[in-house]
Amino acid sequence: MHIILLSGGSGKRLWPLSNGARSKQFLKLLQNTVGEKESMVQRVLRQIGIALPSASVTIATSESQRDFIENQLGTAVDVVTEPERRDTFPAIALSASYLAMEKGVSPEEPVVVMPCDSYTGIEYFETIAAMTSFVERGVADLVLMGITPASPSTKFGYVVPEASSSCEAYRIVNRFTEKPDEENAKKLLEQGAFWNGGVFAFRLGYIMDIVNRYISAGTFAELRSRYAEFPKISFDYEVAEKAGSVAVVPYNGSWKDLGTWNTLVEELPVSAMGKVTLGSNVKETTVINELNIPLVCDGVDNLIVAASHDGILICGKDSAEQIKRYVDPLDSRPMFEERRWGIYRVLDDTYHADGSHSLTKSITLNPGKSISYQRHNHRSEVWTFVEGEGVLVINGEPRNVKVGETVAIPVGHLHTLKATTTLTFIEVQLGNPLVEEDIERFEWNWNSIDL
Amino acid sequence: MHIILLSGGSGKRLWPLSNGARSKQFLKLLQNTVGEKESMVQRVLRQIGIALPSASVTIATSESQRDFIENQLGTAVDVVTEPERRDTFPAIALSASYLAMEKGVSPEEPVVVMPCDSYTGIEYFETIAAMTSFVERGVADLVLMGITPASPSTKFGYVVPEASSSCEAYRIVNRFTEKPDEENAKKLLEQGAFWNGGVFAFRLGYIMDIVNRYISAGTFAELRSRYAEFPKISFDYEVAEKAGSVAVVPYNGSWKDLGTWNTLVEELPVSAMGKVTLGSNVKETTVINELNIPLVCDGVDNLIVAASHDGILICGKDSAEQIKRYVDPLDSRPMFEERRWGIYRVLDDTYHADGSHSLTKSITLNPGKSISYQRHNHRSEVWTFVEGEGVLVINGEPRNVKVGETVAIPVGHLHTLKATTTLTFIEVQLGNPLVEEDIERFEWNWNSIDL
Repeated sequence: MHIILLSGGSGKRLWPLSNGARSKQFLKLLQNTVGEKESMVQRVLRQIGIALPSASVTIATSESQRDFIENQLGTAVDVVTEPERRDTFPAIALSASYLAMEKGVSPEEPVVVMPCDSYTGIEYFETIAAMTSFVERGVADLVLMGITPASPSTKFGYVVPEASSSCEAYRIVNRFTEKPDEENAKKLLEQGAFWNGGVFAFRLGYIMDIVNRYISAGTFAELRSRYAEFPKISFDYEVAEKAGSVAVVPYNGSWKDLGTWNTLVEELPVSAMGKVTLGSNVKETTVINELNIPLVCDGVDNLIVAASHDGILICGKDSAEQIKRYVDPLDSRPMFEERRWGIYRVLDDTYHADGSHSLTKSITLNPGKSISYQRHNHRSEVWTFVEGEGVLVINGEPRNVKVGETVAIPVGHLHTLKATTTLTFIEVQLGNPLVEEDIERFEWNWNSIDL
Repeated sequence: MHIILLSGGSGKRLWPLSNGARSKQFLKLLQNTVGEKESMVQRVLRQIGIALPSASVTIATSESQRDFIENQLGTAVDVVTEPERRDTFPAIALSASYLAMEKGVSPEEPVVVMPCDSYTGIEYFETIAAMTSFVERGVADLVLMGITPASPSTKFGYVVPEASSSCEAYRIVNRFTEKPDEENAKKLLEQGAFWNGGVFAFRLGYIMDIVNRYISAGTFAELRSRYAEFPKISFDYEVAEKAGSVAVVPYNGSWKDLGTWNTLVEELPVSAMGKVTLGSNVKETTVINELNIPLVCDGVDNLIVAASHDGILICGKDSAEQIKRYVDPLDSRPMFEERRWGIYRVLDDTYHADGSHSLTKSITLNPGKSISYQRHNHRSEVWTFVEGEGVLVINGEPRNVKVGETVAIPVGHLHTLKATTTLTFIEVQLGNPLVEEDIERFEWNWNSIDL
């Protein structure tokens, strides 16, 4: 079995913890069975490893998430990134093409598409195994998971089975509906409809026939280079609603979309994370503090509090669904990023009265990791090393550096850095404009260095 | 008339805005008549200037507050600092001695002692003028202000007048009482008692007679050097309760002690200060954000929220009196300080895994200001200038510096810096231990420089 895990875009519903760089599925807020922090995507991978040990996993995502995935999941998964943002059909088509054209997976093999942020019990994966067996038996072109509704929610799309469909293990689907209003949601429940949980199973050949209608390419590389030819359309519209036959497999185990603060806080292992002091008069409140300063909270009830380098949220649980409208206008840059080589934090970002603009970062490279060989055309950088040892290259000249040293990198000078041990430095950028995009990357061969 | 304004110590009741370095009276949270931000001490000085224009003001305080006072009040006031922390009697005795011995004020002149953090109407100062006239008329050794109680509060000391005392403008005092319990507070109100607002008037000679009982010195400098000989006792115990005759002048105008969050927020001009977004469902809530990241607040009622570089407070108004017990155990260093030469902020303070300790600050010197000529025995510093121009001296060698330059100052090297224009630099400290106290100061004559 091949699983395509959809790792979606950045959202602000969990602001300030999620931001343009860090999507909610990478937040390490959950807890695994031995009490270690884990993210949503790590949890799903752990569950797949237990329930579906023979499944191969391909993550369909964007280039901006590659570093997070590598840091959190290592190399146990394949990663297929979209060359540009389109919609779920093109993203799934690309990963399916990767399986067919790059990995040589047979058209007869079952493929499962699933989101990476559903919070479920292990039974969920047993249902997925059942779905693939129905695909193998050919009961329908497309087999999807139907979540037994807990309430007439207006937040989900619904799947309506045939009235006459009587098989218990699966039902033939009559139709899909968009998110309904409350009255229609109640009617849907009377008709035995399910929530659409976004889990689909099909033969690889079935989806590749659709792919080939848009792009007929000889290689995966060619197909990827023509990615813009795919229409911007969701998988639900392009595939599910047009399928000749669709079956739904009911799932009535635990299932949650942890995409909002309210659903997330219910699953958090503790009510306070980080440097937090809760007073004696705190009720039904969750406080997460990622900052390095203390947070004191008392005399509050039913609140969600989250502080990160990007901002601070203080919100009654009843209002948490509405924060997006207040957060969307905030257009500050991400103040914290996780990269394949380590992490950085923005310590200070100031436009001075004399017209200069400076940005100060704390940057940590993990042992053995290096940044790209690069130059900037509009900014100088001063690096002061405050932890560890490494090798610095400026304009082709390598040298060892260690804690206590300072180096100035003028505008236009080529530079790269590799950590021998964990290597931390304070970077002061000065320039105009001062943007991440002011970077030109070049090749550098670390193997050529002999210090 | 001579006013001794008591500028008391640091407190944590207004944490995180007040800290070990920044006492509550220096927080610029209030607003003057033209809409500019002003602090409690600036407000009192402005009111004195209007109501008592001929009064001279001496501020009795500690050395740690001198920079704040100079920044906020300029040189319009005299500042007398205690060589060490004792209590209110020694502090007032020292300032009185300064008036008598250093400024040559006559023993017959009236002196008024008052706190700098009472939030009052201008009538308060008219009452002070009346008090000094009663001192001049000799109605009592000591004349104090009696605040007409608004309620049987248990938070104040009380002043009980003689039952037979019938003069309307002043009453003869029968006795003082400590903060009573509620039952006794009600009885005190029935007896016509006043709150003791801490405002005292007396002839300078009266207090100097008491001073001379403890320390008989020929000069103010000698007296100050023998400051430790004063007993650690409050003015109330040492002077007010022992006085042969005490009169109280009633004051029934507006009067508030802004020493707690609850009393302070009632007087703030707006409910949101700083980078704050309030949602549509925010009631009876005050949010102050001194950080440079956005704070979003919605769905809350009756809260006090304050965020500074020292920490974040989120507190129901009913619990605000109790925060001290949660804040006291927090022993982090002040992350923001105002000095006579400018300001600094701590951007990062990290103990690294390899044992090194680094501290990164943003430091701004105001034009024409300089730091002391100094050296550190346990830390190196790297300065990267990000705004303005100045003159740097290292080991006696002066040179011009400006935005874009970086200088490394090794352990033990003497250095000083003077701002030509507003001068900002990022400082990376590295050492062990990394404490403010690792500083030796030397003389430097800026006039000798000719660049």
